Amino acid sequence: MIDDAALNMAKRKMRPIRKTIPMDEALRLVAEAARPLERTSRVALADAVGRVLATEIVATRDVPPFDRAAMDGYAVIAEDTFGANRQAPKRLRCVETVHTGSVPAHRLVSGECTEIATGTPIPDGADAVVMVEETEADDRADGAVDIFVPVYPKQNVGRRGADITVDQAVLGAGDHLTPSRLGAIAALGLADVVVYDRPRVALLSTGNEIVEPGQPLEPGQIYDINRFTLGSVVWEHGGIATSHPIAADSLDALGAAVDAIVSGGTDVLVFSGGSSVGEKDLTLDILQEKGAVLFHGIAVKPGKPTVFGHIGSTPVFGMPGYPTSCLSNAYMLLVPLLRSMAHLPPHRMRTLTIPAAQRLVSTTGRHQFYTVRIVDGEAVGAFKASGDITSMSQADGYIEIPAQTDIVEKGELVDVKLF
Amino acid sequence: MIDDAALNMAKRKMRPIRKTIPMDEALRLVAEAARPLERTSRVALADAVGRVLATEIVATRDVPPFDRAAMDGYAVIAEDTFGANRQAPKRLRCVETVHTGSVPAHRLVSGECTEIATGTPIPDGADAVVMVEETEADDRADGAVDIFVPVYPKQNVGRRGADITVDQAVLGAGDHLTPSRLGAIAALGLADVVVYDRPRVALLSTGNEIVEPGQPLEPGQIYDINRFTLGSVVWEHGGIATSHPIAADSLDALGAAVDAIVSGGTDVLVFSGGSSVGEKDLTLDILQEKGAVLFHGIAVKPGKPTVFGHIGSTPVFGMPGYPTSCLSNAYMLLVPLLRSMAHLPPHRMRTLTIPAAQRLVSTTGRHQFYTVRIVDGEAVGAFKASGDITSMSQADGYIEIPAQTDIVEKGELVDVKLF
Repeated sequence: MIDDAALNMAKRKMRPIRKTIPMDEALRLVAEAARPLERTSRVALADAVGRVLATEIVATRDVPPFDRAAMDGYAVIAEDTFGANRQAPKRLRCVETVHTGSVPAHRLVSGECTEIATGTPIPDGADAVVMVEETEADDRADGAVDIFVPVYPKQNVGRRGADITVDQAVLGAGDHLTPSRLGAIAALGLADVVVYDRPRVALLSTGNEIVEPGQPLEPGQIYDINRFTLGSVVWEHGGIATSHPIAADSLDALGAAVDAIVSGGTDVLVFSGGSSVGEKDLTLDILQEKGAVLFHGIAVKPGKPTVFGHIGSTPVFGMPGYPTSCLSNAYMLLVPLLRSMAHLPPHRMRTLTIPAAQRLVSTTGRHQFYTVRIVDGEAVGAFKASGDITSMSQADGYIEIPAQTDIVEKGELVDVKLF
Repeated sequence: MIDDAALNMAKRKMRPIRKTIPMDEALRLVAEAARPLERTSRVALADAVGRVLATEIVATRDVPPFDRAAMDGYAVIAEDTFGANRQAPKRLRCVETVHTGSVPAHRLVSGECTEIATGTPIPDGADAVVMVEETEADDRADGAVDIFVPVYPKQNVGRRGADITVDQAVLGAGDHLTPSRLGAIAALGLADVVVYDRPRVALLSTGNEIVEPGQPLEPGQIYDINRFTLGSVVWEHGGIATSHPIAADSLDALGAAVDAIVSGGTDVLVFSGGSSVGEKDLTLDILQEKGAVLFHGIAVKPGKPTVFGHIGSTPVFGMPGYPTSCLSNAYMLLVPLLRSMAHLPPHRMRTLTIPAAQRLVSTTGRHQFYTVRIVDGEAVGAFKASGDITSMSQADGYIEIPAQTDIVEKGELVDVKLF
């Protein structure tokens, strides 16, 4: 139900943000609200890279499943090679050749050897492999092979279960599926895995002035930027973004859109626009109406007019409409929320520590997200204005200047987090 | 045409790798063979994150398209506010309220102001905006607004074209589409972009012993690991992996598979298995038969038995069958090839510089790819054997020990590249 009194109040007066909370407090509240998803799906191994395992993987077999040659060469009884050298090779009789995919049929006895390819099971009786480079087959004497080096028992043999042993816990729930971990699962013969679902993130660009790219622009209108920047950030951090028709700036229209999205099943709701202090900033009203506000206003620059709360158990962000403010807060607040919900490890940005090319003056008492370009190994300010997307699109990364720091001197080392 | 003489020769004798090339030489040959793709496709903006722009983007309009309020507040004639302070505010008359998405109708004259929301066009006549926090509307006198601070001309006004000006080259061909760059494109109203195609990588696991996960395992057989590790690496680095039925270890079968793949259109061909020195290692024969070999054998550990060449203009890798050798060479050689073909910037791995927890002994004359775990801030060796996928799946990253370094002492600092 839309509260007419609230609507009227909202229409009557602008509501300045009187009180902001520090960035670390905002991060704490967001972290508390992030509940890792419990829903899981079974996916084919070939589609599982980057996903997060939802079950333990316990080996049901040994890998490798048999003692195998670790080198191309000859399987031997080690004792037969003792004392061999280039001048006085030991001559053995090759009784069988085992190609990959085949298994030896002949059990070795002293004086015999089996020609064997890497990965092939060694024959019964054999206990070592001499690498081919250390042997010479005598073309004149059929089957005669000269061995030039001694091998000790088990040398050049990959033992059954050396890689993975049956009943071993190979991977656990929460493990991020990297290429090598998918390889370990393939080694066990599993064709699919159970992974956590990706968080579904509904994106709503509010504002009557916002127009979909591709459409003509009327006077006073601008194109929707945030849906695309937010959508890509969601995609890059394990979420599935669903965009919703641009919601007009009225409490009725917004309320109906939110009801439809929440009842349709979404894990996170992100508004952009409508969280500043303007007369028509209705995200706050929606949150107060349908859920609860956890904070409104962060001591950060840009990005101050950010709302966070929840409707039921669904976390809700009201991001500023300004593209740089919206995207910087997405990096600082939405990414940790998403990764936590997706069971992904914290994002590790590549960081360069380099000198500031100029003196940087920050706003006292506000955590600053400051975009920079890297020029001749120094950080040059790239920030224009919160409304300018080129503040970010023409930057190489950003530095964070804590609230208690006012000035970064020229030449001072800064940590640049690279986009 | 299959050359029967070559086939017979291949069948008759193992062919040890007599000569290896240094890793940097292998990298140079691979880099030379990598031709950036010229094929392009038009994709929707929402699907373009991570892709590479194939055309220059020149602005066809100003962004923002009009002078706009950078704050919620009142549009004013700056001169009217000069000398204002808390004790002696300047009182103006609000003549209009402009909601987002609307345009002002009234041209301001001295003594007037317009209530305005962030992002809204400022009215004709106005040249500055006073933020709402520095004003107070007098509820008793309709339309009277007290201004507590002076503003200078252009203050709190986002000027038309301040973000992007018409005819400006905003992005260039080869630019990697990050979230903020997609935002800049959206700002211009473009709904889609032309990007370079992703390289198509055909993966062929050779070997009669190789079985698809999910299928039963017969004696002497093992599961295919490399298709999954290679496939995920390809996916992570901008390629499209296509898997092909496991090719049996015969020159006929392999030749037919290769002909079908090359004529079907592929940008890279990656064999795994069949590049060692075994009797049945036929990748080399295929390359010699249908194209050219650029190198066979690298002074690297693991991963020595690696073949590289081309069939026509298609680069061809023959990766070792051993999972760790195959995957480490994929990281070191296939990734740079792929990223170069995809027009992607070189891969920047996150690196930790930490002490070695123990003395690490490397093979003289061979570049070593050495997997490590990070335990208490130190690098602990995680490498088991080239055949063991757990050498990598249970590691956090790897260090590279150059060919000329034999020993890394305990406590020496090493650069761990994190998986």
